[in-house]
Amino acid sequence: MPPVHAGVAKNTKGVAAKNKSFHVPGFLAAVTSAEIKTGDLRPDFGLIFSEVPAIVSGVFTRNLVKAAPIHINLKKIAQKKARAILVNSGNANACTGKAGLKDAQKLSQQISQALSIPDPQVFLASTGVIGQRLPMPRMIKVIPSLIKALSPNGLSKIAEAMMTTDTFPKLISEEVWIGKKKVHIVGLAKGAGMIHPNMATLLCFVLTDLAISPVLLDRFLRRAVDHSFNRITVDGDTSTNDMVLVLANGLAGNLVLNDPDNAGARIFSRALNQILLKLARMIVQDAEGGTKEVTIQIDRAKTEEEARTLAMTVATSPLVKTALFGEDANWGRILAALGRSGVSFDPGKVDIYFDGIQLVKNGISKGPKEETQAGAVLKKSALTIRIDMHQGTIKTLVYTCDLSLDYVRINADYRT
Amino acid sequence: MPPVHAGVAKNTKGVAAKNKSFHVPGFLAAVTSAEIKTGDLRPDFGLIFSEVPAIVSGVFTRNLVKAAPIHINLKKIAQKKARAILVNSGNANACTGKAGLKDAQKLSQQISQALSIPDPQVFLASTGVIGQRLPMPRMIKVIPSLIKALSPNGLSKIAEAMMTTDTFPKLISEEVWIGKKKVHIVGLAKGAGMIHPNMATLLCFVLTDLAISPVLLDRFLRRAVDHSFNRITVDGDTSTNDMVLVLANGLAGNLVLNDPDNAGARIFSRALNQILLKLARMIVQDAEGGTKEVTIQIDRAKTEEEARTLAMTVATSPLVKTALFGEDANWGRILAALGRSGVSFDPGKVDIYFDGIQLVKNGISKGPKEETQAGAVLKKSALTIRIDMHQGTIKTLVYTCDLSLDYVRINADYRT
Repeated sequence: MPPVHAGVAKNTKGVAAKNKSFHVPGFLAAVTSAEIKTGDLRPDFGLIFSEVPAIVSGVFTRNLVKAAPIHINLKKIAQKKARAILVNSGNANACTGKAGLKDAQKLSQQISQALSIPDPQVFLASTGVIGQRLPMPRMIKVIPSLIKALSPNGLSKIAEAMMTTDTFPKLISEEVWIGKKKVHIVGLAKGAGMIHPNMATLLCFVLTDLAISPVLLDRFLRRAVDHSFNRITVDGDTSTNDMVLVLANGLAGNLVLNDPDNAGARIFSRALNQILLKLARMIVQDAEGGTKEVTIQIDRAKTEEEARTLAMTVATSPLVKTALFGEDANWGRILAALGRSGVSFDPGKVDIYFDGIQLVKNGISKGPKEETQAGAVLKKSALTIRIDMHQGTIKTLVYTCDLSLDYVRINADYRT
Repeated sequence: MPPVHAGVAKNTKGVAAKNKSFHVPGFLAAVTSAEIKTGDLRPDFGLIFSEVPAIVSGVFTRNLVKAAPIHINLKKIAQKKARAILVNSGNANACTGKAGLKDAQKLSQQISQALSIPDPQVFLASTGVIGQRLPMPRMIKVIPSLIKALSPNGLSKIAEAMMTTDTFPKLISEEVWIGKKKVHIVGLAKGAGMIHPNMATLLCFVLTDLAISPVLLDRFLRRAVDHSFNRITVDGDTSTNDMVLVLANGLAGNLVLNDPDNAGARIFSRALNQILLKLARMIVQDAEGGTKEVTIQIDRAKTEEEARTLAMTVATSPLVKTALFGEDANWGRILAALGRSGVSFDPGKVDIYFDGIQLVKNGISKGPKEETQAGAVLKKSALTIRIDMHQGTIKTLVYTCDLSLDYVRINADYRT
């Protein structure tokens, strides 16, 4: 079977997104090429600047091996204020030791001085190859032109400059009314591999002119991440560089939100959930080599934790994922994955559906007719595998993709 | 890069093995074709018969979804006696519900009646496609010819009849002297995918004429499995059908072993460990689509559990495994895998070696020269990645393979 790379559909999505406005009052942005990969002149270096101090909330990789920018940001996030995010692709500045940490500090200081903002309010993000030093001279050299190019229309370009193996930029713009004030929210993300929910799992920046208390922003961000980025998996690997940052500059002029039950707070929380979930699903759609977006839905589990364990075991099984790539309705592998998940259940009660087609009833095949119908479902670029455990009342969803020849090709040759 | 399928080397191993004697006094065996996959006339059905009652010890899959033969064997193993093993490839008789269980029971009864042996002493093993009923009429029809063909020279053919995606049969013959008696031990295994240590993980039968107490045999088997089959991983998936059975018929005439510290007991235990480890490593060498056998060695971890978790996280990482396939000495992915393992350690102390080449010292790259040298190591068909944690005194080994284009091809198309 030829790998059905959804390149066209993906690019269409990217282009369609570009026609929207990605403007948030008070935020400027610019990108340039610092040739972070030697000889590559695509934009790989970007700056987001908040004209007024914004409050910031962040979640960071739980990987014990953290890249230099993560170490820097973890120290800064406690003071809850941000003015800038400096981001590069092509080099993760991870596993670079003390030298890499000094490089990151130097970049932060350069931005702080050039923009006359406090150094602790400059956040850093890097993505790309692990274990190589940043090309500091080339990066420092272009910082003045980066600052000069800052513009209210620059945000959408940041999403492009962050791309590594991504095939389309991931960005979303939303407007909500809070009180009588219009609030703008823009979300940007990158990620196509090394995606797994052991935390934020990628780079994602959300910029808004909302006025909100830092405590409430933290609470809403954590909840939104838990239902979006913590529910997607491409290959089970987590990155050293993952982060989600939300900056809120207050320029919308709404009454500062600090009560989670306030109507405006609920509106914003819902919008943030939606934006992060959409960005998370874009990442699965853009999964390295993935030809299908597959939603794993667990119904009637006993607890949320068990439901998620069941769903994630299916969603990460190489045998399930290769069968999806081969468009083989191999429900036996799904049952076998559930069985090794460590969750206790009665295999004789499990039902499995591919979209509307019930393949398995009470743990055994419904028959060849249903397998043929499920084979047709597998030809679609997106489908839901619904597994009814008949054990309790809890439902959960996770998002995954197939394991294709292109995944192996991309990751075998990544550094060459 | 073309997939370097080690077909020739593998077949050589298989052929070389055939030149040895695989005879154990008192054990007869035969194979035939039951066309378990319609139209496929290769041997797919085999019988091992012990002329005298043998004691038996077994370990079985921990997957909650167990195939019918596993359910049957779990009931029979408590009485510790075996006379026969009936094995088929092409169909796992898993996820077949009560009907599959009845099929298995019927096969057992047929063997019991035809050989005039107690039904509880007939063990069953199946491997192949999940979720389909066995072709019972074709299987029952050939049982008389199978029994007629029983021969002392049949054991090596069993290893062939068990093969599914295996590219070579896995069998080992050893002779040891216990007291003044010569003891024969033959080990047979199959397995090339769905391999992960959540228990016995494949089909393996060990036949010996040793005289040993059931309690001691259990103890030695568990220890040997823990250091062999529980240390290999191909794809992280565990099968519904895994089992290891050891049958000891006592015909060697040695004094019955029942003290683990007895000299003869130590000799046998060591031989059993070696046989299971060799069979386990053959399975990794024959990993579906694998082009390299990779030993992950953790040095100086704090505890055995932590050492194994670290080793297994590296050994199962898709990003590490695709880099190995691409012959890219991507140590950053190794560090990132260690970092997400859940084990606490200081990344600034980790050293990484590819065979004799030190790539990483104190968590950072030794430099481009070492990366080039490590690239040369990666061209070998077998290598060791040694990771020195500098945290404690515990060393451990696990065995894995790369993740190749062929792995995806084989598993995408398995049922077609």
